[in-house]
Amino acid sequence: MDETSFKLLAKYLPSTYVQQAKDARNTTNFLFNQLLEKRKWPEEGWSERDIEILLDELASLDSNNFLKNHGVGEREARIASSLVAKRNFHLGHGLGRSGDLTEVQPKAAGSSVLYQLTNDLAKDALRTLGVPDVKACFVAPLATGMSLTLIFLCLRQQQPKARYIIWSRIDQKSCFKSITTAGFEPIIVEPILNGEELVTDTEKIETIMKQIDPDLIACVMTTTSCFAPRACDDVETVAVLCKIYRVAHVINNAYGVQSTKCMHVIQQASKKGRVDAFVQSTDKNFMVPVGGTIIAGFDKCFVSKISQCYPGRASSSPIVDLFITLLSLGSKEYKSLARERKQLFQLLKEGLAKIASRFGQRVLDTPGNSISIGISLPSVKDPKSLTQLGSQLFLRCVSGTRVVSNLESKVINGHEFRNWGAHHSNYPTGYLTAAATIGMTALDVEQFLQRLTKVMESWSTKTIPIVSPSLTNGH
Amino acid sequence: MDETSFKLLAKYLPSTYVQQAKDARNTTNFLFNQLLEKRKWPEEGWSERDIEILLDELASLDSNNFLKNHGVGEREARIASSLVAKRNFHLGHGLGRSGDLTEVQPKAAGSSVLYQLTNDLAKDALRTLGVPDVKACFVAPLATGMSLTLIFLCLRQQQPKARYIIWSRIDQKSCFKSITTAGFEPIIVEPILNGEELVTDTEKIETIMKQIDPDLIACVMTTTSCFAPRACDDVETVAVLCKIYRVAHVINNAYGVQSTKCMHVIQQASKKGRVDAFVQSTDKNFMVPVGGTIIAGFDKCFVSKISQCYPGRASSSPIVDLFITLLSLGSKEYKSLARERKQLFQLLKEGLAKIASRFGQRVLDTPGNSISIGISLPSVKDPKSLTQLGSQLFLRCVSGTRVVSNLESKVINGHEFRNWGAHHSNYPTGYLTAAATIGMTALDVEQFLQRLTKVMESWSTKTIPIVSPSLTNGH
Amino acid sequence: MDETSFKLLAKYLPSTYVQQAKDARNTTNFLFNQLLEKRKWPEEGWSERDIEILLDELASLDSNNFLKNHGVGEREARIASSLVAKRNFHLGHGLGRSGDLTEVQPKAAGSSVLYQLTNDLAKDALRTLGVPDVKACFVAPLATGMSLTLIFLCLRQQQPKARYIIWSRIDQKSCFKSITTAGFEPIIVEPILNGEELVTDTEKIETIMKQIDPDLIACVMTTTSCFAPRACDDVETVAVLCKIYRVAHVINNAYGVQSTKCMHVIQQASKKGRVDAFVQSTDKNFMVPVGGTIIAGFDKCFVSKISQCYPGRASSSPIVDLFITLLSLGSKEYKSLARERKQLFQLLKEGLAKIASRFGQRVLDTPGNSISIGISLPSVKDPKSLTQLGSQLFLRCVSGTRVVSNLESKVINGHEFRNWGAHHSNYPTGYLTAAATIGMTALDVEQFLQRLTKVMESWSTKTIPIVSPSLTNGH
Amino acid sequence: MDETSFKLLAKYLPSTYVQQAKDARNTTNFLFNQLLEKRKWPEEGWSERDIEILLDELASLDSNNFLKNHGVGEREARIASSLVAKRNFHLGHGLGRSGDLTEVQPKAAGSSVLYQLTNDLAKDALRTLGVPDVKACFVAPLATGMSLTLIFLCLRQQQPKARYIIWSRIDQKSCFKSITTAGFEPIIVEPILNGEELVTDTEKIETIMKQIDPDLIACVMTTTSCFAPRACDDVETVAVLCKIYRVAHVINNAYGVQSTKCMHVIQQASKKGRVDAFVQSTDKNFMVPVGGTIIAGFDKCFVSKISQCYPGRASSSPIVDLFITLLSLGSKEYKSLARERKQLFQLLKEGLAKIASRFGQRVLDTPGNSISIGISLPSVKDPKSLTQLGSQLFLRCVSGTRVVSNLESKVINGHEFRNWGAHHSNYPTGYLTAAATIGMTALDVEQFLQRLTKVMESWSTKTIPIVSPSLTNGH
Repeated sequence: MDETSFKLLAKYLPSTYVQQAKDARNTTNFLFNQLLEKRKWPEEGWSERDIEILLDELASLDSNNFLKNHGVGEREARIASSLVAKRNFHLGHGLGRSGDLTEVQPKAAGSSVLYQLTNDLAKDALRTLGVPDVKACFVAPLATGMSLTLIFLCLRQQQPKARYIIWSRIDQKSCFKSITTAGFEPIIVEPILNGEELVTDTEKIETIMKQIDPDLIACVMTTTSCFAPRACDDVETVAVLCKIYRVAHVINNAYGVQSTKCMHVIQQASKKGRVDAFVQSTDKNFMVPVGGTIIAGFDKCFVSKISQCYPGRASSSPIVDLFITLLSLGSKEYKSLARERKQLFQLLKEGLAKIASRFGQRVLDTPGNSISIGISLPSVKDPKSLTQLGSQLFLRCVSGTRVVSNLESKVINGHEFRNWGAHHSNYPTGYLTAAATIGMTALDVEQFLQRLTKVMESWSTKTIPIVSPSLTNGH
Repeated sequence: MDETSFKLLAKYLPSTYVQQAKDARNTTNFLFNQLLEKRKWPEEGWSERDIEILLDELASLDSNNFLKNHGVGEREARIASSLVAKRNFHLGHGLGRSGDLTEVQPKAAGSSVLYQLTNDLAKDALRTLGVPDVKACFVAPLATGMSLTLIFLCLRQQQPKARYIIWSRIDQKSCFKSITTAGFEPIIVEPILNGEELVTDTEKIETIMKQIDPDLIACVMTTTSCFAPRACDDVETVAVLCKIYRVAHVINNAYGVQSTKCMHVIQQASKKGRVDAFVQSTDKNFMVPVGGTIIAGFDKCFVSKISQCYPGRASSSPIVDLFITLLSLGSKEYKSLARERKQLFQLLKEGLAKIASRFGQRVLDTPGNSISIGISLPSVKDPKSLTQLGSQLFLRCVSGTRVVSNLESKVINGHEFRNWGAHHSNYPTGYLTAAATIGMTALDVEQFLQRLTKVMESWSTKTIPIVSPSLTNGH
Repeated sequence: MDETSFKLLAKYLPSTYVQQAKDARNTTNFLFNQLLEKRKWPEEGWSERDIEILLDELASLDSNNFLKNHGVGEREARIASSLVAKRNFHLGHGLGRSGDLTEVQPKAAGSSVLYQLTNDLAKDALRTLGVPDVKACFVAPLATGMSLTLIFLCLRQQQPKARYIIWSRIDQKSCFKSITTAGFEPIIVEPILNGEELVTDTEKIETIMKQIDPDLIACVMTTTSCFAPRACDDVETVAVLCKIYRVAHVINNAYGVQSTKCMHVIQQASKKGRVDAFVQSTDKNFMVPVGGTIIAGFDKCFVSKISQCYPGRASSSPIVDLFITLLSLGSKEYKSLARERKQLFQLLKEGLAKIASRFGQRVLDTPGNSISIGISLPSVKDPKSLTQLGSQLFLRCVSGTRVVSNLESKVINGHEFRNWGAHHSNYPTGYLTAAATIGMTALDVEQFLQRLTKVMESWSTKTIPIVSPSLTNGH
Repeated sequence: MDETSFKLLAKYLPSTYVQQAKDARNTTNFLFNQLLEKRKWPEEGWSERDIEILLDELASLDSNNFLKNHGVGEREARIASSLVAKRNFHLGHGLGRSGDLTEVQPKAAGSSVLYQLTNDLAKDALRTLGVPDVKACFVAPLATGMSLTLIFLCLRQQQPKARYIIWSRIDQKSCFKSITTAGFEPIIVEPILNGEELVTDTEKIETIMKQIDPDLIACVMTTTSCFAPRACDDVETVAVLCKIYRVAHVINNAYGVQSTKCMHVIQQASKKGRVDAFVQSTDKNFMVPVGGTIIAGFDKCFVSKISQCYPGRASSSPIVDLFITLLSLGSKEYKSLARERKQLFQLLKEGLAKIASRFGQRVLDTPGNSISIGISLPSVKDPKSLTQLGSQLFLRCVSGTRVVSNLESKVINGHEFRNWGAHHSNYPTGYLTAAATIGMTALDVEQFLQRLTKVMESWSTKTIPIVSPSLTNGH
């Protein structure tokens, strides 16, 4: 509706109602304009209705939604199914142009604005949540593994001779594969055992840097958020080394946005040393479906090169999901959820400590991990009996626990990993992990602890533990 | 509802109604079961209602939708916004596992089935539409450019020494960038001018193959669908050469599924020669939003390697869009739209011929292009005046035309392209192209022709053509 | 978005895209403004997207959707469930005020405009479809029976002494109950048998009018659309009588809008005689869910009195459904569906004739019914065997047939009806009816005829007909 | 999906996943079956997803959604617009049959079950919320005024001689019109002033009952929830009188469900005296859009007669809205909202007291009203200046206040009401009311008080009060 519409409405309504309706409309427009002008993550969440109206407004700027448009190109964003059209808010053109993921699309002005806004909101979110110095970022329509690959491919373009990526071992296959798929050879640096915690072997990293021509090293990849008993990598020290030895540094901050600790170390690392890019999953940190990351950095130019590296267009779906969610939550609600997560982490830890002690076990001491918690499991003859513990929990509708029996090996792309899953060839005990992540509720913790107790009870009666040497000795 | 529900309904309803309701329900279940069993693209389209119910059923198999599920992992597919949840049918886990895009996800059985089904439907669609011999395919949640990059990265893993990709020039930036982003060096083979048509320089391709060690060549990339006056590549001959010289062959079948011609040459190429993979955009061929491709091939093992190459998870959104659309259209409706496209191609050609002749121009003779049509434009002093033609059409809500002024050059990733846009360094005339693609309507053609006439009228009065040598001479 | 928004967009987009987006927006606004200004049923249907945007715009004018509104009344249109909010487009205030159903609501300007617009569109639809002289109408959120009751209650207020309603018998319970619920006593005038057709006994109606003080007669109620073998009432003659004897005349035009014949007789009746109001179901004529009627008339003042008679507010749901549907179809599509219906009526008739003759029966000759068709059934000992025919069809998923065994009686509110269902105490044969109504498809007709044949086959082998006198004799 | 489907899934998934998916499905079915079996308002609210799935399941039982159904009747629930179909969950047949609103529809088994379930849930809700002895109820697709009319029409059928309804005056037009539209003559009993509160004149009611032949009195209508300074009627005493004098008693419990007080007096009245029916608005009590009531009573037979009185079918929309909302909230959440309302009532009262005292006014002492609060306003020369107060609040986006200037009169259907709006011909002061109703938030109260203060400030500087006699004297 426009000025003319409101004039016409005067035939339907008394003038005071028309005036009030206009005022109300202006209030909504003001909300939109504030967003367009400030490009900041709003503190107060928006109603779904306002978000939908804004999305409709933006979609109206895309040529496929022009009432009089007629297309004679090969890509006209025609959408055959109205179900598909609706779930995509009639946005059909995706993101980017051939030249650059973040470039404006002539046929899709609305989609282009939407993408820019989402990137702005994402940047503001990273700043608000602990990395105030971040300079640029974009939301990649790729999950973490592929986003890392994209960064590595970009690094290759800058440094064509590079062959290696130094990698502080973390036993998640996609991290490893992100290296090999990009065509690099990983130099695996196993973390060292500090008490019960696995921490970054910065010495070894430095040794490697000294040994190998820096032109051959694409980057070091570190990881913040991870499963206990691995700790958040010592990204600060690595950043300093990278600065000294002129090696790029890429941080996998997979689900670290929800943890002030993870965010803080990135901020510090950027101050003291070198951080070229850090990547965070949108699904794990912002509770959207799998499919996006925020690729961020402290150098506008490098971040821009990454997005320029992306060949062609991409799905805007992960961007739309994040846009809606950021607006819907607002920073206030997000922070409140993050605080709640922290409290539930404590609750989970205490609950696990009780259960562990009841079965003669203990919570692994991993002060460097603020999200995931491990409890030791008795040594058993058959490692399968440990795995059963996980399956039984899963069958009782507990998802997300991880049992590491400490005896498996795995070959991935030709590299053998002893004790795959443990991040370490020689971790002294089997264990079970659980994590407190954003969006979790007290009921989740409570139900998990109850079901774990039941499963442990039935399991411990059936399983004969090996008399095992006390873990605390000798570490 | 289950058996018990129907027993309980007997308290609400006469038994005959209960029986009839059960029968009706069985009919729907039968529809679903046929799909699960046959894994074929149904001939008759489904109603949106049935599609939604099936999607709801599948989503119910994902653990995040289990009523009693409690998650303690780092990725539990929690969805913060109900707007986001609904538009994704409560599917949150995306696709794939770290190991393989097509692997079953333990927490997301429904999503896994959905993906397998979509891949099955896509395979059947390719078979139905002209490539009966296709052996395997998967829907990649990536647009064409990035999908090509993924295939090239996979080829590198198989052939670590490879450095080059032989590329039959097509002036779409993302095609070129798919090579450089993957870290390869393109060997550009410019098409040759045959009359007014640009056709594959197969001789030069063979020459290169003879000259260079095949271990250094990752593949040849050809393209089927393209803008006139470039023709569909001679993929059959290239395939034969690839077989002879043991070089991989990747076909960009971007929007060729809608053209029986493009599909036919792929089928033939696979019989006579070598085709490792061919890629088709889901948006351009199946009228879904940008974001997916079908990566297909004639060797199960190689296609599987490509999907295994993908590191980690991915958005399921492009898959959901395609799944809905394939079921919604059914093969019957799709074929009917494809036939309509063919008729509109004729209509468009005839209309353009009339307009062209009125302004002393002609339709370029490009029998090898079944989708895009070009009309010559007069030579002008200032190439910008040609570009204005395109802008004026765009401002009159005609999208998709392409004006090639034949005088621009462009440097992409260090490679200079003379006459960028023309697929050729030296095309003898400027021209305007338009395409007849699937989903187009007669009204689109009619309106385009009307508006083009008006724009040409006003434009020709303002523009002074250079007296130019007749184009037909000398070519 | 407003002017300011577009200025802000210039930071995101090149100015030409901003301009084009504004143009596109103006096109949409123009569409809306045309509707607001002309208040006519558009010829071309609107897209769902445009309809939804307009509904959102209108809902934004309701105070419960004002961003800053705070309510301290007892009715603030708070909507607890977001599912409910969405399905109602956030419209919560319903229709009307205590004073009048069509009055503007201060808190719900948008809903008020929506209602006025729907009434305007409905009026234009009635005019377009055959009653050009209609002066006023409103969409009542009541189905046909209750709408008739409302009119009768209004007549009572005008004529407090009235006790009777003269009713040309039609065997639909709700028609009869609309009289008794309104507190009137029906004077039942049975139609007379003209050949095989049941036609209005206008003589008897006149006799009654002569006998009874007109002050005691609230009105005559006639019916247009009905099940064969009853014909459309002779509303023209009744209208003339009503004019002469100063008796109100209410026409139940239940599903007559789809039939040019039914509409024509109403138009003629209004010219020659007296028609106070005529009522048409929205679901049966416009393919929306049950729940609304259009109450129309030729005297603005009387129609207005009916809407003023409605005490309090009402659901706007039936209005929203009709509004969407009228815009979505447009008059062109509706007329095309109406033409199709007419053709299917012929198809159905021919098909039934064939089947009937095969089983020694015939299509009843009812030229005065343009929607419903009857075929005679053999006389049988047990009338239940006739009813089984209907059940068997229903179990084979044919809905809507009606078998009249011609032997049942029914007492409704103290009145006994012999041969309930036949509209006549003494119809000479049992029969089965089927109707061709708007929205029907050729597949519906074809499948019905197939299934009827099968059912008749199996039924006729099991049933022993009484040797019955030929029906055609003696009529 | 059925057993066969799960067998087929074994080709897609490991058997443990299939098993777990089946288990999850059973959990959902169990939820549905519990509802179907117990017919109780669940304590815990359901997720929107589960509600939608149940609605889909129920809709699948309606013949218009049978895959193979072909309709040849005049009412086949065809839905032309898919937007309309979706918003109605593909339910097209509405409620009821000609015979009875609550009767099962052969073509719409699912709709019929839905309606029965909603009625069951509504009954359980009334019981849970304070009227445990309620025997029967149904949700009428009519707002309060028309529902009262329906009850009165039903009373007429039982008592054909009745002419009068005794009505304890409440100044809401629709209440009054519900009487006149039903064709009755109201005998208006003005409440009496008790302190500042208006309470039921039970003596006068008894006097009338003594004077008039009970056969001429259709019923007494009392009202619970109302605007201050009127109190909830003394329904208990009236009920006792009705029992003694054998007069029917209908209670308008408009928005009283949210108040334990209003519910309690109804329960008590039913025990001590006579209550034939009580009516409550679904929108005001359950936060759904306007359009429904729950008509309840303590005699199954009478309640059933009311629903049988309804002629024909009706919209199921208000029923669907209530069904969703009751399931979505669950009794726990509703009770919590009701408790919150009670607290906000105190907050509002205290806030108003402060503001009132600041401007030399006071909160009216009305202990018999638990929802609405009045504050006195100064006497002014021009009553319009009082009304301006309300308008100014409305323009500042405060809706729902009511200013009674105490000087207006109104004629409705021939009856003159002095001081219309005040429920009394002679209330001693002007006043402003505000109400605390369910769904209100603390922010609503806070913002209202702030804006009221501002408006009062600006208003009091402009308005010259008449020196008025102290209100507390003489009453």
